[in-house]
Amino acid sequence: MMAEWNAWTDDQLKTYNFPIHPLPICSVNDPQAEELIKEQKPVVIKGSELISTAQKWDLEYLREHIGDGEFTVYESDSESFKYYDDKKVIDGFTPPMKQRRMIFSEFYDAIKNKNRTKKYYLQQPLNDKVGPQIVVDFINFNWKWIKQQQMNNNWGPLTSNLLLISEEGNVTPCHYDEQENFYSQANGYKRVILFPPSQYKYLYPHPVYHPHDRQSQVDFDEPNLKLFPKFKKVVGFGTVLGPGDVLYLPSYWFHYFETLKNSGIATAITFWYKAAPVGNITYPLTAVQLMAMMRNTEKMILEALKDYKQVDIFWNMLAAGRYCKDVQDDTDDEDAGVGNDASVVAKLGDIGRCTGHGDEAKNV
Amino acid sequence: MMAEWNAWTDDQLKTYNFPIHPLPICSVNDPQAEELIKEQKPVVIKGSELISTAQKWDLEYLREHIGDGEFTVYESDSESFKYYDDKKVIDGFTPPMKQRRMIFSEFYDAIKNKNRTKKYYLQQPLNDKVGPQIVVDFINFNWKWIKQQQMNNNWGPLTSNLLLISEEGNVTPCHYDEQENFYSQANGYKRVILFPPSQYKYLYPHPVYHPHDRQSQVDFDEPNLKLFPKFKKVVGFGTVLGPGDVLYLPSYWFHYFETLKNSGIATAITFWYKAAPVGNITYPLTAVQLMAMMRNTEKMILEALKDYKQVDIFWNMLAAGRYCKDVQDDTDDEDAGVGNDASVVAKLGDIGRCTGHGDEAKNV
Repeated sequence: MMAEWNAWTDDQLKTYNFPIHPLPICSVNDPQAEELIKEQKPVVIKGSELISTAQKWDLEYLREHIGDGEFTVYESDSESFKYYDDKKVIDGFTPPMKQRRMIFSEFYDAIKNKNRTKKYYLQQPLNDKVGPQIVVDFINFNWKWIKQQQMNNNWGPLTSNLLLISEEGNVTPCHYDEQENFYSQANGYKRVILFPPSQYKYLYPHPVYHPHDRQSQVDFDEPNLKLFPKFKKVVGFGTVLGPGDVLYLPSYWFHYFETLKNSGIATAITFWYKAAPVGNITYPLTAVQLMAMMRNTEKMILEALKDYKQVDIFWNMLAAGRYCKDVQDDTDDEDAGVGNDASVVAKLGDIGRCTGHGDEAKNV
Repeated sequence: MMAEWNAWTDDQLKTYNFPIHPLPICSVNDPQAEELIKEQKPVVIKGSELISTAQKWDLEYLREHIGDGEFTVYESDSESFKYYDDKKVIDGFTPPMKQRRMIFSEFYDAIKNKNRTKKYYLQQPLNDKVGPQIVVDFINFNWKWIKQQQMNNNWGPLTSNLLLISEEGNVTPCHYDEQENFYSQANGYKRVILFPPSQYKYLYPHPVYHPHDRQSQVDFDEPNLKLFPKFKKVVGFGTVLGPGDVLYLPSYWFHYFETLKNSGIATAITFWYKAAPVGNITYPLTAVQLMAMMRNTEKMILEALKDYKQVDIFWNMLAAGRYCKDVQDDTDDEDAGVGNDASVVAKLGDIGRCTGHGDEAKNV
């Protein structure tokens, strides 16, 4: 444990001007950890040995053993890797990074290339194309411990293990996932900042139809407080994950990751589980239940209206000046509105006179 | 017809500073009228004789013939009679008028009382308690014509006939109804201003849970353009209804009524019909379809959250900074939020240290 004690220093962390409280850090046998997981509150667990057999997964080892399968590698001009769903299409959206498919040795060469201008982040679910040595390491993960957690907390099935190989300095912007996650650090150092679901309104996730669904609209490096004034109120929970650390990342908690500057490559593996079935509903609903309700409501209206532009108009009509403050926007063009009756205005105008009775009209 | 020609003058109308276009006015045989009704666009119909047997319904006649049944009479300290649904209850709501039950002679005496400070508006669905002479008049309404309209337009059943007896100067503030209406003037003069459903966003109806559901939040006499900036864009369609006039008032069209100043008593009868079934949905949806969708969505969330205060928070969370501009509101107290994890903050704070590993935390 004490190995990581001097493994990094504050100047390797990006600086943000919102408060960041420490995340609880517990040894695997600490009953406090169990309690937090049960309460769906995040905790860093030390000594679980969950993926100790992956701590040796450095680039050389992986290049030798991981096999010839293809891997999804994101290529970015900046340090930021903001996920987007390419099944969601909207006008004028340019993906902030490029999604490429590479065999591992191509990724290795890309990383080792001194003259490159791009940054890379490998994000690939582990599958049966990996080589036998990796399979052995995988089989020797501490399944006993994690299955016990799954059972204790009544979680659904394990859905995927994402292998994450990040360069130093890479940033995964703030977003939330809809599953429970044991985020396991194999090697290298990652700083994580979490935000509880109750801070949804400070983080302004994109609309559900948007390719950046589940991602905060706020750029942490240059927050636009005109558009996102409540971001001022955001309060994070942070820590730095080192080799062997496991973060319990509850579903719907917002999270942000940065691989420490000058810390080399960081390798991590996610363990995503379907959340436990919702028990008896009690009021008031939890922030997680509200987030799920908001997602479903947004999806329902998108399905009904088909066109995301109409969805924007619908929600604005429903909320502006009724549930939100309204702001005069003279760029707002009423003729853009769905179901707009500009036609009616014209029409009624045209026929303002019917046989023999028009004259009353002018009295009004 | 020409009788009403000089029956009133502009100085009997309240003045508003938004544009008001003339409503189309058609004689009953004008095919234009049929066309407008089919298109669910408003039109004033002359010569239908729909309630000519009610044109003699003045106070004396009614006092003599209408019977001893009780009538709903609204009593107001002002000229404004803003409807409220007393089944919808929210904190700190004071009804803007008093709902009373009177037999007709009590209403008559109230109206005739010279020293009174209150204003009165009788609004009572016609029922089987009325006297035989009124029944005869009712039977002799032009049912042939109106049933023809009902059939031509595939409307549902007639749901009610509201008898409206208004004093001069009474105002019914802007609202919409969910049924088709032939609004029939028996005697007296009423000025009406209509707004198409596409102007929903300029008129800001109260939330569905509010006692003033379906009513505009905007006070036409003193519009608060800080809260309701888009009211600037509102454009009305107006006319003055006189004896014998029938207004086709399409469902979901906003409407405002004023009984002309110094015009005495005005008596009108509504003919409310269930709207025609929605045919094949085509896109984009009409403003009416959107209004119905908004109502259903608001009702669904109210049912799920039970508490209207949570509904406010839910819609604000969903829309502010995502579908509406957000505005910093420092009075906004995050701890008022449903599912707020202020508790989490505390909790995680408390247990920021677990056995033997606390010290990593302070590095973040």
